[in-house]
Order: sequence, then structure tokens, then C-alpha cells
Amino acid sequence: MEKSLCKQLAAIVGQEHCLTSPEELACYSYDASGQAFMPEVVLFPDRATQVAAILRLANQHRFPVVARGAGSGMTGGSLPVRGGVVLACSRMNRIVEIDADNMLCVVEPGVITGELQEAVRHHGLMYAPDPASLKFCTIGGNVAECAGGPSAVKYGVTRDSLLGLEVVLPTGEIMRTGVRTEKGVTGYDLTHLFAGSEGTLGIFTRLILRLLPAPEARTTFLLTLDSLSRATGLVAEIIQSGLSPCTLEYMDKTAISVVADRISLPLPKSTEALLLVELDGSKTEVSDQSRRLLRFLADRKISYRQATDDDEIRELWQARRAISPATFAIRPHKISEDVVVPRSRIPELVRFTTELSQRLELTILTFGHAGDGNIHVNIMLDKTDQAELERALKAREELFTRVLKLQGTLSGEHGIGITKSSFLAQELDPTALALMQKIKNLFDPNDILNPGKIFPRQELQTGDD
Amino acid sequence: MEKSLCKQLAAIVGQEHCLTSPEELACYSYDASGQAFMPEVVLFPDRATQVAAILRLANQHRFPVVARGAGSGMTGGSLPVRGGVVLACSRMNRIVEIDADNMLCVVEPGVITGELQEAVRHHGLMYAPDPASLKFCTIGGNVAECAGGPSAVKYGVTRDSLLGLEVVLPTGEIMRTGVRTEKGVTGYDLTHLFAGSEGTLGIFTRLILRLLPAPEARTTFLLTLDSLSRATGLVAEIIQSGLSPCTLEYMDKTAISVVADRISLPLPKSTEALLLVELDGSKTEVSDQSRRLLRFLADRKISYRQATDDDEIRELWQARRAISPATFAIRPHKISEDVVVPRSRIPELVRFTTELSQRLELTILTFGHAGDGNIHVNIMLDKTDQAELERALKAREELFTRVLKLQGTLSGEHGIGITKSSFLAQELDPTALALMQKIKNLFDPNDILNPGKIFPRQELQTGDD
Repeated sequence: MEKSLCKQLAAIVGQEHCLTSPEELACYSYDASGQAFMPEVVLFPDRATQVAAILRLANQHRFPVVARGAGSGMTGGSLPVRGGVVLACSRMNRIVEIDADNMLCVVEPGVITGELQEAVRHHGLMYAPDPASLKFCTIGGNVAECAGGPSAVKYGVTRDSLLGLEVVLPTGEIMRTGVRTEKGVTGYDLTHLFAGSEGTLGIFTRLILRLLPAPEARTTFLLTLDSLSRATGLVAEIIQSGLSPCTLEYMDKTAISVVADRISLPLPKSTEALLLVELDGSKTEVSDQSRRLLRFLADRKISYRQATDDDEIRELWQARRAISPATFAIRPHKISEDVVVPRSRIPELVRFTTELSQRLELTILTFGHAGDGNIHVNIMLDKTDQAELERALKAREELFTRVLKLQGTLSGEHGIGITKSSFLAQELDPTALALMQKIKNLFDPNDILNPGKIFPRQELQTGDD
Repeated sequence: MEKSLCKQLAAIVGQEHCLTSPEELACYSYDASGQAFMPEVVLFPDRATQVAAILRLANQHRFPVVARGAGSGMTGGSLPVRGGVVLACSRMNRIVEIDADNMLCVVEPGVITGELQEAVRHHGLMYAPDPASLKFCTIGGNVAECAGGPSAVKYGVTRDSLLGLEVVLPTGEIMRTGVRTEKGVTGYDLTHLFAGSEGTLGIFTRLILRLLPAPEARTTFLLTLDSLSRATGLVAEIIQSGLSPCTLEYMDKTAISVVADRISLPLPKSTEALLLVELDGSKTEVSDQSRRLLRFLADRKISYRQATDDDEIRELWQARRAISPATFAIRPHKISEDVVVPRSRIPELVRFTTELSQRLELTILTFGHAGDGNIHVNIMLDKTDQAELERALKAREELFTRVLKLQGTLSGEHGIGITKSSFLAQELDPTALALMQKIKNLFDPNDILNPGKIFPRQELQTGDD
């Protein structure tokens, strides 16, 4: 990037909000996918008009712009794979409004998810989506990737909490979409087209989000199963029994082992898998649901531990959220997938990953949001071991093929980014894929906003218009 | 339309599934908006490949095609305003699959909503969306308009029950979108872009819909209020109190009067407004919520009737659903709007319509889904009375202006169609409106699918690309 252009960019946001030294740039080059690409400039705009000015300049001079929240994404969505500008949203971090009467809030994209949850809790309200990274990830990134979390089984994913947007289009126009009401069908639903579009269609500058009444009570059960297939088979049974847990998480034996030292509740030696079942709602509702769950467990002779106080609940959650980072104790690298299958097919999926692990001599963990069929599959490896790397890549390929055969989908909440783009065509109808690329081209004719993401590279080159 | 073209169309679906006589065409010329436009041909395809063949021919010969479900739409969405083909979905009316294990179903667009509800009930499941016309409206139309209903306050609108689609694009390609899982973020969310697109972006041939466990119990309360503002003010209070009704409907005095003879529960003479509050869930949950509601009502000295058996509940619902047709007892015509405001602004909106009614000497009823701020405003008139017609049109204009001032939206569930297209630009950001038109043009370059809907006419002519 030419110096004069850098100067123009710095003038938009102010010199003090512009980074260009290699050491500083390096801090904005990576995300949780384990990959890194150096940007040429990092800018910290603090309002929509600055974002618009940056994008207009990008169209004029054809350099890429990539929005970045906390860099906690798992698939490279915020990485500047073609250099250019990283547009960091950390200064646009205001909670603009909490409208408790109408149970909604207006926030800027850089607000940290956990901090929003905390802020609305003071109004007796809840912002439902709870990705594992909620202590540091941001709302803008959550909407861009359509993040999920354990509570999605009851409260839906980020998309379901999104009501409206102020978004800067790749061509630099500032646009408002959506509503401040519970309903709205005036024109096409542009708002939700942006949810999960991985920063390729626009840069959010304000988000209108739905809030819910905070549940009055909560209780957590840890089901200890001595058989993996028993554990996975229970998931659909629990949901069908009329129980409506706000969490139904699953961990296999390897996942348990990496966080075992964080759980003080004693687990039976024979434990092969855990299910974490959380119930929330009014006090009566929670005690009614607890009674039903206990009857369900007694009928099936399933042993459990109940977290009896807030500390125990917190501890279980800390253990659950620590699984992903703690896996690196096993091997230095991993391929981390978040496939989804219909709930009733989870046992088949997990049986398959076990078989895969044995056949390819790899450690493969499975854990995650079993309640909605969203299983995190972590294929552990040492990338410097070429043979192991090849086996791991083969494992991923076979995993995806099987997931699609089970009528599942490649990603429940991490998105496609760069890590899965070469597999996208396996899942999507070619007409749908071509239409998505035409939409991208309509929004971003010069391909300056987060280029190189989602779409398979060769498809981009051979598109017929 | 030339005879030879008609012959080609008939050959696609079979002569016996093609109507061309004026008497037959007339039956497919109108909907619940009270307007009528004659089609040139009505076709009854029974599969996607036939729909595709019709659309390909339409592109070749540039005639309009309009999909039609039950013709129960309120805004002219299914009317052939430019003639051409009405594509009736009544033969594509199969429930293809009910997957009780994974709580979803696959249906064709012509399935009647109420019949789907009945079919899934046998599996202990619920299809939540419940538009007032559920006895005759169809799923395809519900998704096209993003229909709501009383239960939307708890379970969301039709969009929220939609998981995936098989859809024929205006250019004739058959495309699959979405998932059979609870979650999915592979590529752009095309599925939900079709929800509420009013039949302008594609013709659905299969729909994958989310089901929920059927609630175990249900109870209905009729709150009788002697003040209109008291009734409307209660709505936000009820929701904020932590109650989670599956219905929170409101009727003003005029709405009550048109259905009074259908309600056998005696109402106090002083009744100025009714709130219909329904609670559902497990038996314990319903009795807990009932207790809370009764305490809430006692604290505020609000009188109520409780429907104690199924017959009484059914009667209340029949009365509620009969309001819209029964209004014609007042005046022969109406302008029927389904505006939405943030819940806390309902009292202001209703105060305004009362003032409007007095100032413009019109009968204006308000009723509807108060729980989500979606108020049906019926402006009654006799269209043959020119002066009254002008006052009614003025009332509508002032209503829309006020709704937008109250941070509301012009339509919660009826869509824009032809009746509101000239007002769309008042609500939407011009950039958003232009982008929607570009999307329409991308999907349907020859403007053959349901042309003349949603977008303001002059905007279509002056669009800069």
C-alpha cells in the first residue's frame, strides 16, 4: 500500500487510531483458527461515517478491507488473507440504549458479548446467545458468524436475537435495515441476510438486538454415562420427553480427561461420557422440570450429580468452556469442526468418529451442543508430522462426507471462512452456491470487503457472470 | 396470450389441470384484499419440474407468473395484476414427511396450515404459526408473506419455523436451500430471504419446517377492562412481569360489538376493551403462570373470565377469528392494516386512532396481537361514498406517519403487496429499498415472477440500474 494512501486512511480515523508498524500489525494478523495473514494497516474507526469513508477509498484504490472484532473466530473470517486494511471495531463499543420496556437494545459492534449480558441483567433481562468465548468475543463478530452457544437449544442462535442493523455496504453507503419491533415484513429481510455472512456483505456499525426476561432460577445436572452410545442416544430422548433444557451439552471421555482437574464433583471411574443438562425458568418451572428429569433418569437408571450452588454451576461451566483450549495438552494442533446432524443421528456420527479415530490412528474428541445436534469434533495432530497431518486431513474429509450423508450440515456456528471453503460445494446445491456468489457480487462489485472467504476459490474464477 | 402458448402451458401440466374460461379464471382473480385482476390462464402443476418448465417458458415469452395458495392474503400478493399465469399450488398439497425424532416436517406449499397442525398433533408435536385463516390458508402463502398469528408472541412468526426450501427460481432453476438441522451457517442464509418475499423471488415446491413439542395444557383468560388506555397499557406490563403467554390479543369496544353474539361468557356492561390471555406449557407451568396472572390481576383490580373447558376456549377463539370478516356488518368496505409498534407505544397508537376516528368521522376498529405490538387497524367505509373514501385514505396516511414516528413498522404479517407499496419508501432507508430492487432484478432479470408487487411503481421506473 502506497504511503499517500496510508496517509489518507490515517486522516479518516486520526493518526493515533492507525497502526502500521510490523509488531503492531502482527497483533491483528491471526484468529482462533491458528492461521495468520499480515494486514498492511490497522484502522480503528469510531463511527459509521469513518467506516464509509474507508470503504469508499477502498473501492477507488481497490484494496481489501476486513472487519475484526476480538479475533476469536474459528474459521479465519477476520483474517486479511489478501492484505490491505484490518478495520478493528474495538472503539465502536458503546451500548447505545437498553429499552427495557420493549426488551431490546441498540449496541455498537465492538461490545463484548459477556459485558452486554451483564449490562442487561441489571434490568432483569437476558441477552441469550452465549458462545464459549463470551468473555472476549464481540457482538459484531457474533452476528457476522451467526454464533451459537449452549443456550441455542432453547433460545436459538444469534440470528434469532437480531432485529435490525445499521450497516455500511462494501460500496460505502450507510444503510439501516430491520425493525425495533417484534415483527416486521416490509420488503425483503435484508437484516438476516447479513447474519452469518461472515463480514463479506457489509460492516455493522449498530445492531438492534432482542432481549428476553431473565430466568428466575437455574439448575444444572451432570449425567455420568458408562457408555458413549448410551449418552448420545439419550439426547433425542430428553428433548422428546417434553423437557426443554436451556443447555444439553455432551463430552466424550477424552474431552472429560482434558478438563478433569477442573471438576471437583467426583465422577465414577466407569464414566465414558457426560451430559450437562441445565434447566431455567420460573422457580416452579425449574422444579417441575427437575422432577421430570429425575424421573426420566431414575426410569433409565442413569446416575447424575446435581450442582447445588452457584459455585458448582460456575465450575462446571468453566470446565465446559475450557475444553477447546485444554485439548492442546494432547497434541500441539487440531482441526476443529462444528458439524451438525439431526439429533437422532448423533449416535451414528459419534460411532463413526470413534471408528475413524481407530482406523486413522488419531485422537479425535467429540463434545458440544448435542441438544441441537451441533457436535464439536476436534481432530488432534502435530502439523509438523507430515504423515499425521495427511491422516487428519483425510479424517476431516471423511467426517464431512458422513455428516452430509446423515442429512447434516458442515457448520452450526463457526461459519466457513477459509478453513472450509473448499468443502462448501459438497453441501450446497450448485444453483444456491452460484446465487450466493451473485449476491456477493451485487453487494461488493469490486470484491474489496473480506475477499477470499466462504466461496471455493475456483468457483470464484469460473463464475459465468 | 396466444393460443399456441396456452397449448404449450397446458401440455406441461396436462389439459385437465389448465383453466382458460372466463368463469373459471374469475375464481382465481381475487384475494382477501378485496381487489381482483383477471389471469389469462390458471395452471395446476403438481411437481417442481412442471413449475420450472412454466417459468422457463415465461422467460422466453415474457409473460407474468403469479403463485397462488388459498388466496387468503390481505395485500394482493397473489393477484395477477399484469395478467398472465396464475400458478395454483393446490395439487402440491402433500405432507411428504413428519420426522418426529428430529421434530421437523417436509411439506408441499399447498398444504393447509390447519391440516398440518392436525397431522403433527398426532405425533405429540405442534406447528406453531397460527394465522387467523389457518382453516384454509396454505403453508406456501404463509412463508411467502411471513404470516404471524396470536401465538407469535411466544413462538415467533412463520420465518422462525422455516428451516429449508426447495424453490424454483424465476429463471426456472430448481434450488435447495437450508438445513434439516436445528442450526446451520454454510454460506448466505438464502432460505430466510425467501420468507416474506411475497412470491417475488421464487416459487416454493417443498418446505422444511420446525416442529415443537405440543404443550400439555392450555388455559384462557378474558380480561374485561373499562378503559381502553388501561387495556393497552397492560400489555407491556404483562410481558414485563415475567408471564410468557402464548396469546395476548386485544379487542376494542367496536371489535367486541361485531362478535358479541358469538361470546356466551357474560361481559360487564362497562367493558371498553378485552384482552385475551392464553397460557400453555406443562400442567405445572400453566398452573404456575395462571397463579401469577391471577395475582397480577388482583393487584390491579382487573376483572376477568376464565374459559374453563375446551368448548369455552373454542368459542372465544371463534369470536376472535371472526372479527375481521364480521366488521363488514358496520360498513361494506374497509382498509385493513396490520401495523406494529414497540409494545410500550401501543397506548399512544390507540389513542391516536381514536382521535383520528373522531376527527375524520370514521369507524376505526383496533384489535389484534397486542403482545408483540402488532395491532390490526380496520378503517371502515363505503367506497362508493367518495368523501368517506377520501377521509379513509387520509386516515391511513396519518396512521402510517404516526406508526413510523412511534418507531414502528407498516406491516407485521400481511406484507406490502400492492396495497402498501406506495408507502414503502416512507419506512425504508432509500439505500435498502434500492438494494431490495437490485436483489429482485438479480433473481428475476425479466421481471416475470409476481411483477408489480412490493416496490413503489415510480421507484421501479427510476431505478438507476
